[in-house]
Amino acid sequence: MTNPVLVEVTRGNIVESTHRGSVAVVDADGGVVLEIGDIDRPVFPRSAVKAIQALPFVESGAADAFGFGVREIAFAGASHSGEPKHAALAAAMFDRAGLSPGALECGAHWPTRQEAALDLARHGQMPMALHNNCSGKHSGFLCTCQHLRLDYKGYVKREHPLQQMVREAMESVTGAVHGIDNCGTDGCSIPTYAVPQRALAQGFAKMATGVGLAPKRAEAAKRILEACMAEPYYVAGTDKLDTRLMQAANGRIMIKTGAEAVYCGAIPELGLGIAIKCDDGAVRASEVMVAAALAKLMEKDEELAAKLREFAHPVMHNWNGIEVGTLRPTQALA
Amino acid sequence: MTNPVLVEVTRGNIVESTHRGSVAVVDADGGVVLEIGDIDRPVFPRSAVKAIQALPFVESGAADAFGFGVREIAFAGASHSGEPKHAALAAAMFDRAGLSPGALECGAHWPTRQEAALDLARHGQMPMALHNNCSGKHSGFLCTCQHLRLDYKGYVKREHPLQQMVREAMESVTGAVHGIDNCGTDGCSIPTYAVPQRALAQGFAKMATGVGLAPKRAEAAKRILEACMAEPYYVAGTDKLDTRLMQAANGRIMIKTGAEAVYCGAIPELGLGIAIKCDDGAVRASEVMVAAALAKLMEKDEELAAKLREFAHPVMHNWNGIEVGTLRPTQALA
Repeated sequence: MTNPVLVEVTRGNIVESTHRGSVAVVDADGGVVLEIGDIDRPVFPRSAVKAIQALPFVESGAADAFGFGVREIAFAGASHSGEPKHAALAAAMFDRAGLSPGALECGAHWPTRQEAALDLARHGQMPMALHNNCSGKHSGFLCTCQHLRLDYKGYVKREHPLQQMVREAMESVTGAVHGIDNCGTDGCSIPTYAVPQRALAQGFAKMATGVGLAPKRAEAAKRILEACMAEPYYVAGTDKLDTRLMQAANGRIMIKTGAEAVYCGAIPELGLGIAIKCDDGAVRASEVMVAAALAKLMEKDEELAAKLREFAHPVMHNWNGIEVGTLRPTQALA
Repeated sequence: MTNPVLVEVTRGNIVESTHRGSVAVVDADGGVVLEIGDIDRPVFPRSAVKAIQALPFVESGAADAFGFGVREIAFAGASHSGEPKHAALAAAMFDRAGLSPGALECGAHWPTRQEAALDLARHGQMPMALHNNCSGKHSGFLCTCQHLRLDYKGYVKREHPLQQMVREAMESVTGAVHGIDNCGTDGCSIPTYAVPQRALAQGFAKMATGVGLAPKRAEAAKRILEACMAEPYYVAGTDKLDTRLMQAANGRIMIKTGAEAVYCGAIPELGLGIAIKCDDGAVRASEVMVAAALAKLMEKDEELAAKLREFAHPVMHNWNGIEVGTLRPTQALA
């Protein structure tokens, strides 16, 4: 099955590029509310499932033991831009847990926000693991190990007890098998497992409603989603769509991107989960897809839907600020 | 017509993302040697046709009048990385022509090579128009105006005499109409016209062979292609595929990328032109497509073909240097 074109990139009056993709919107019982393209093809959710991967951090009592609030819990589910406030929060979490940033096994890279990278350079600094966009998730991992008195060395590896806990959470929430056959390695070195989009969407509906989850897990899931919606800057960063979208929805939508153009999230008031994948891995297109799909789902609230539709219709400017083109959802999404 | 999947992105043992595209390889008389996907759909060639856009710079006598050599001629057809040597060459050309960099109308942006951007920041500097990846092409434009005593103000606009010269060159080489209906604005503010891939490929075959071009134009075309092949660093930059590919082919292949994943180029010894477009605009995929297509065309030279095939099979590493996946051409390209 060939997924439909969901996003067009225009220049002048001509379509210059196109993006295909698939969209699954599912309730906690597996009822499909919206299905575009093939939602049964296995997809690596990458960072889009960080909220699920953060369950052990909350369930184990680590977050509470170290006195962490919504900001730190949101940050454990973040792909941040490496801005000073992000690196500082990671450092503060380490400090609180009696850990050193040297424990991080995610690797270092320049902040994804160019301004932040240039600022480091201006001050003669080099990026550290704290600037890695995954350092929040890894802080959660390491604090969990510390709280449970697990040797954290090798905590990114598939067989490490921490990753076994993460895998158990992923399997129980999505209902999908996470085995060696569907396992890949993520950018930050932890395992990522390709599972059907349908299962990811249902998993996020379960996270939002607690349906089908043990009470303790349901409570942790609710805390994590609410933390992300309360602190969207710490889930992403300045000008990131995830941040802007959650700010616009003001506590009514939780949404998270993952590498190679994945989006997962939930609309708690509708009891729905959403999972999106752009075939070609283009972030720009997955952003239009998620904004358009959410606008459709929230159409009864015309004010919010209008804001979401605006995110689904970005205008492109060139280096002189001249408008040169647009991105827009196709009929299949509108 | 749906273009076929030409590139797969793998993670572990699973295909994570896919890229569709089209490939046209045509001789100077319009004979199609290789046709994959829809090669009659209009495509904005963007920067992939800078060699054609540089024709007035050579034909007008501007390049010779200012004593420019192969390096400057190659640079007039460049999309460079904004490295110090690139900015310096642009500045030197202005100097020679009695112009100021303030004449540039391409806009400023941080060098596309991250190392170069960070180095500017380390020295407390901001990017100038000289760092714009198109400053070489614009230097050629401005030197042409200067030589012809044309008022260069507004030289990026469609109706300016310089752009009329560029358009005439584009139309005569590609044989395609460049009108208001297929006109868009490029990143550097000059017009770009969507024309069929077939016409672009044939145009580059004409550039390489001189067939169908007036003698003076044929001579200028040959000079430009040879200059690009002789100075690939000044056509692109450090670690850029265009540079590496032309270095590997050592004067036997001219190739040039354009934004939104276009490639145009020529293989003079075969009398062929090539034009490639990845549907979704992904550079990583267009790089695999062009390397794989060139490997196929050069298969009689096993040593060169092997090098080209290597470019068509890049391995992806994560932040810890662990191999996480690959890009590879599909059967449709192999």
